Amino acid sequence: MIEVGVLGAHGRMGRAVCEAVDAADDMALAATVDRDESLEKVAGCDVVVDFTLPGAVMANLAWCVERGIHTVVGVSGFDAPRLEAAREILAADPEVGSVIAPNFGIGAVLLMQFAARAAKHFDSAEVIEAHHPRKIDAPSGTAVHTARLIAAARAEAGLDGMPDATETDPQGSRGADVDGVRVHAIRSAGYVASQEVRFGGPGERFAISHDSLDRASFMPGVLLAVRAVAGRPGLTVGIDDLLD
Amino acid sequence: MIEVGVLGAHGRMGRAVCEAVDAADDMALAATVDRDESLEKVAGCDVVVDFTLPGAVMANLAWCVERGIHTVVGVSGFDAPRLEAAREILAADPEVGSVIAPNFGIGAVLLMQFAARAAKHFDSAEVIEAHHPRKIDAPSGTAVHTARLIAAARAEAGLDGMPDATETDPQGSRGADVDGVRVHAIRSAGYVASQEVRFGGPGERFAISHDSLDRASFMPGVLLAVRAVAGRPGLTVGIDDLLD
Amino acid sequence: MIEVGVLGAHGRMGRAVCEAVDAADDMALAATVDRDESLEKVAGCDVVVDFTLPGAVMANLAWCVERGIHTVVGVSGFDAPRLEAAREILAADPEVGSVIAPNFGIGAVLLMQFAARAAKHFDSAEVIEAHHPRKIDAPSGTAVHTARLIAAARAEAGLDGMPDATETDPQGSRGADVDGVRVHAIRSAGYVASQEVRFGGPGERFAISHDSLDRASFMPGVLLAVRAVAGRPGLTVGIDDLLD
Amino acid sequence: MIEVGVLGAHGRMGRAVCEAVDAADDMALAATVDRDESLEKVAGCDVVVDFTLPGAVMANLAWCVERGIHTVVGVSGFDAPRLEAAREILAADPEVGSVIAPNFGIGAVLLMQFAARAAKHFDSAEVIEAHHPRKIDAPSGTAVHTARLIAAARAEAGLDGMPDATETDPQGSRGADVDGVRVHAIRSAGYVASQEVRFGGPGERFAISHDSLDRASFMPGVLLAVRAVAGRPGLTVGIDDLLD
Repeated sequence: MIEVGVLGAHGRMGRAVCEAVDAADDMALAATVDRDESLEKVAGCDVVVDFTLPGAVMANLAWCVERGIHTVVGVSGFDAPRLEAAREILAADPEVGSVIAPNFGIGAVLLMQFAARAAKHFDSAEVIEAHHPRKIDAPSGTAVHTARLIAAARAEAGLDGMPDATETDPQGSRGADVDGVRVHAIRSAGYVASQEVRFGGPGERFAISHDSLDRASFMPGVLLAVRAVAGRPGLTVGIDDLLD
Repeated sequence: MIEVGVLGAHGRMGRAVCEAVDAADDMALAATVDRDESLEKVAGCDVVVDFTLPGAVMANLAWCVERGIHTVVGVSGFDAPRLEAAREILAADPEVGSVIAPNFGIGAVLLMQFAARAAKHFDSAEVIEAHHPRKIDAPSGTAVHTARLIAAARAEAGLDGMPDATETDPQGSRGADVDGVRVHAIRSAGYVASQEVRFGGPGERFAISHDSLDRASFMPGVLLAVRAVAGRPGLTVGIDDLLD
Repeated sequence: MIEVGVLGAHGRMGRAVCEAVDAADDMALAATVDRDESLEKVAGCDVVVDFTLPGAVMANLAWCVERGIHTVVGVSGFDAPRLEAAREILAADPEVGSVIAPNFGIGAVLLMQFAARAAKHFDSAEVIEAHHPRKIDAPSGTAVHTARLIAAARAEAGLDGMPDATETDPQGSRGADVDGVRVHAIRSAGYVASQEVRFGGPGERFAISHDSLDRASFMPGVLLAVRAVAGRPGLTVGIDDLLD
Repeated sequence: MIEVGVLGAHGRMGRAVCEAVDAADDMALAATVDRDESLEKVAGCDVVVDFTLPGAVMANLAWCVERGIHTVVGVSGFDAPRLEAAREILAADPEVGSVIAPNFGIGAVLLMQFAARAAKHFDSAEVIEAHHPRKIDAPSGTAVHTARLIAAARAEAGLDGMPDATETDPQGSRGADVDGVRVHAIRSAGYVASQEVRFGGPGERFAISHDSLDRASFMPGVLLAVRAVAGRPGLTVGIDDLLD
């Protein structure tokens, strides 16, 4: 039984984590900490899940490492310098592990892995993402990342540019060009976060799609990380390597 | 048994029409005329199907009207002045009918009718079209027409603009804006001509899609027009009114 | 401003109705009645929405008709005898209207209407429905109803049976046969209530799909009925006729 | 430049292979052999592609191995005893390779690989295949094989049965049960050979689909095997291992 503590327990993601941990047969929800509460509550835990904020996460991590507690971190904003800082904090105890991930959606990660693997086998590839209409930026980071993985896989295999005879597109219907891969963004009621990759060859289509309808969809990835982190000392970025 | 003559019988569409007429129980392929052949071959026909070229079609039409032969015309380029010219030719014999259509795809016409009808019931609507990569313009005329129908239906129902909080889209991933309806164009191997409309409301999605894989898909619409034209004196533009 | 009262206001559908009425610009949530509360609370309303239970709905209807209040009823179990009983109750005041519907999902109704309209134009048609895995019966009533509408439209147009050379299908992968239309039922996590109709012809596919993710998706249909009921004296069954 | 000979060159697959080899920059179509023609025509080739018939393929293989010619074989009917016989023939020259595959569709193989890999991460999985209506058996062998791979991956990961509360399904709408995975078969005009796997978890959907519209879609897999076979002495069954 893994004793789990949750930081940011009253936020929307935090609440979902508490429910998921509680429902898992091999975990116990040992302690929860909300804003203004003391970290001491999670002192005896095996693993602490942190869905707080960028301003708090580094201090939380240091506190946990000091006490030999592994961490699973879903706080956003971890760019290269912040990841480097996290690595330094973890260096204080080489037996402690931390999984820091921008996205705990297993489906989203599988989609990216499969898209990269399929890319070199088809002449054409386009990415379509669809999100709720309150999203302020387009296209989504996941869609851009997927397009880059496809472009890199094609380049590595020595493929030429995709066939496209378009001469006239006055209004930009062909979408964004990300390293030569077209990305289309839909903003519509009825969607939370969806992504689709469509590949095409002569007489053939191949597609992979992921449709996230609820933050519950991130919980299997969080639980996977909670189970794996004790066996992975040091920093693990993303859940990609945990999937097999 | 309807006696059918086919003009442009050796072109790609013409050949498909000959096969379709031949296979229909209620029609006989009475005569075919190719380039440089005399129209006299189709003189005794009930209906003549014309898939020739813009430069020939008006003379063909006049010849048929003079002999009391109904026509079904799939030649492109019929703008308003040319339709008016066709109307004048038909005025010579008020009992003769002609169906002139830019698109004989029943599926494409149904998609447009249904999209127009559904439009006022959903907050969001976007159009995605996918064509073969040799197409030189984007988006397709059908997609633009569909978007306009949706926009008109929304305006008539007094709907506001669709929800869309996008502030940042540096590469144009949101696609073309056609009267406030977003249109996305895919160019990919494995497609001939496809079109999809996705509607969204709170907790709900609704979609209509049409996928044309072969010019065989236009034949049911041609046969429908052949059957209907004798009962419709004068000019009928498009096959929309023949579908019920 | 339409003054609306809600019966069964604390049930799951009732709560959603209260929120939707509250958010509508042209309605006021005048009164709500829960179990054990007196109907007198809704006495002054223009329209009463009833999402209570089969055992209560007839008395509620009679009470409203007596006071000249229109009703919108989403209680299940209205078979032919019960609809006849409702008609008799309404006969007491020919100016009062009632909309009784088994399904307020506009998308589901549009799907059925469009499927019936498209049916005669394609050689093949199959229905795929997908529901949450807690549903105890398969296929869904909506899917069966859709298949029957398709079969009836084909029969009316004089179409033969669909092409299907299947000789061997030991495990029943071809699904249910509803009046000659195959119906496939998926039971899967990640779904609430979805339905798709796939039509096929030579070189052509046509599909209509509806995906209900939340009971919020029924609210536009409820509001539509609230707006329409005052102008429709007597009984209206289903929201089909309200959509245009 | 790989010198390629084609056996069964006038069959439908054979003709497609000839065109594909001809169009490939790194191959030359050196010789073709049809029924009743002598194998001597392909004597000097590097690789021979065999799309003949079960009754001829073993003799063809022996003839090629004797002359040190690699083979790519798309003849059907290779069960375990026949594969063993092929292995014995190949043992005569340990430097000669042969790729024997039931399906050269790269997309179909990728779909199976990805489905097996994704299976353990989702609560639910169902397979939907769609084929032309002249197919006499259902479900397709590929769909059954995919379902078995999913079932095996779930079993290996220790997953329980999928959630499914169905109590009533009098007409069999839930489809075939293949090792606990439901398989649904559609037979429709407009399809050649399509397959889709839909996975579902709480608040999440994940899908992989492959749509083969033309036998051209098998050619990239044939060419891949032609390029790889010289580097793979002995027997290679299927193209799975050639994809990376």
